[in-house]
Amino acid sequence: MCLFLIFAPMTVFYLNDLTPDQVVLNPDQSKHAARVLRLKQGAVLVLSDGRGAWHQGELKSVGKHCEVAIVQRHFQPPDAYEIHLAVAPTKNMNRYEWLVEKATEIGMHQLLPFFSNHSERQQLKQDRVERVVEAAAKQSLRAYLPKVAVARSFESLMNLDFEGKKFIAHCQDSPRKLLKDSYLIGSNALVLIGPEGDFSPKEVAMALDSGFEPITLGNGRYRTETAALMACHTLHLLNQ
Amino acid sequence: MCLFLIFAPMTVFYLNDLTPDQVVLNPDQSKHAARVLRLKQGAVLVLSDGRGAWHQGELKSVGKHCEVAIVQRHFQPPDAYEIHLAVAPTKNMNRYEWLVEKATEIGMHQLLPFFSNHSERQQLKQDRVERVVEAAAKQSLRAYLPKVAVARSFESLMNLDFEGKKFIAHCQDSPRKLLKDSYLIGSNALVLIGPEGDFSPKEVAMALDSGFEPITLGNGRYRTETAALMACHTLHLLNQ
Repeated sequence: MCLFLIFAPMTVFYLNDLTPDQVVLNPDQSKHAARVLRLKQGAVLVLSDGRGAWHQGELKSVGKHCEVAIVQRHFQPPDAYEIHLAVAPTKNMNRYEWLVEKATEIGMHQLLPFFSNHSERQQLKQDRVERVVEAAAKQSLRAYLPKVAVARSFESLMNLDFEGKKFIAHCQDSPRKLLKDSYLIGSNALVLIGPEGDFSPKEVAMALDSGFEPITLGNGRYRTETAALMACHTLHLLNQ
Repeated sequence: MCLFLIFAPMTVFYLNDLTPDQVVLNPDQSKHAARVLRLKQGAVLVLSDGRGAWHQGELKSVGKHCEVAIVQRHFQPPDAYEIHLAVAPTKNMNRYEWLVEKATEIGMHQLLPFFSNHSERQQLKQDRVERVVEAAAKQSLRAYLPKVAVARSFESLMNLDFEGKKFIAHCQDSPRKLLKDSYLIGSNALVLIGPEGDFSPKEVAMALDSGFEPITLGNGRYRTETAALMACHTLHLLNQ
């Protein structure tokens, strides 16, 4: 927490490999550092590998390939639990990207986009979603970048090897418990959120057969992205 | 809950006065009913006054001024607690409107926009915010329309006559408890969320003097609209 405060006004750069003592920002990051942030030689910045590293770096040279020396290494331990959200892309991509941004800020660990029987949208630009994740992680100072799985079919979610509790938030009129009463604090959770037209009855039956517990998030009628965010924040809050 | 399910695929029309046995939709609502939803004479719809009424109506005539007979009256009791969010408008209005939509879906009772020392935006279109509230309440089937107070100064929030606990979610490095540990279940809460640049130290001092308790929502760096939504959902969840 203290480290977050010290570095609060600074900018985070995510680089895959931070093992060397000196690293090079990619052309986009270099441009951002040099032209947008107007950083000068000697400027202090934060480097993360998105897997817990939260290092302090010093800008050694400014240009198309900015060089940064790592001056202090710090590792943030991972959360004791993981939040996996399997969410059908919404018809309107702005709503989905909004969800990705907010879930990243709050602390989602993995997003698993999937296409359901009732999905109006049957394709997703993976790189676009990943860019939203990185921007939101930067903004909210996350040492762990949420993973974005490749979009898959609903069926392939059924066979997923997952260590933790699995939930399906459907809207059908059958018994469901509140997520907050079904979740076990400290455990991993995978929550399935359907598209605008909800899951098909066949999908719900398949999920129940595959060990997913039926849940509800409250007594309102929530949009896909709202339900997904409520699920993410519920799990985050219960572990707080 | 049952009533929500019965009426789930239907459309809600908010009218201020539902005391007569027959009411008239305003021109916008009539257009929506006739041209968008293509409702015919005899169609069943939901009428609410936004203050708990959740009546069933039958369309008697379709035109520029649709007439609706109230065939069944139902009143939903209010929540035992109230969530009041005082949120400084964000620089980007889309972010603010997004918050208004989501907080309405989740169950905010009142929004109090205010301008802070660090607010980049110093004006707000009240009617636009109210339209977002109504659309979201319709979508999420709310019998209570959240109120939108007229935008005010930070100072005028200090003298607000409020029955319940008052919180300020500032980002300064001073002791703060988590909202979930500070809130008393079942009570009314007023939560202050600052603009992009946070509250000024003077504002924080004034709030503490005026009985606001300092809180935090977690250990991330959250955007204004994210923090406001987290506060709203935290209070909703604790009362669930």
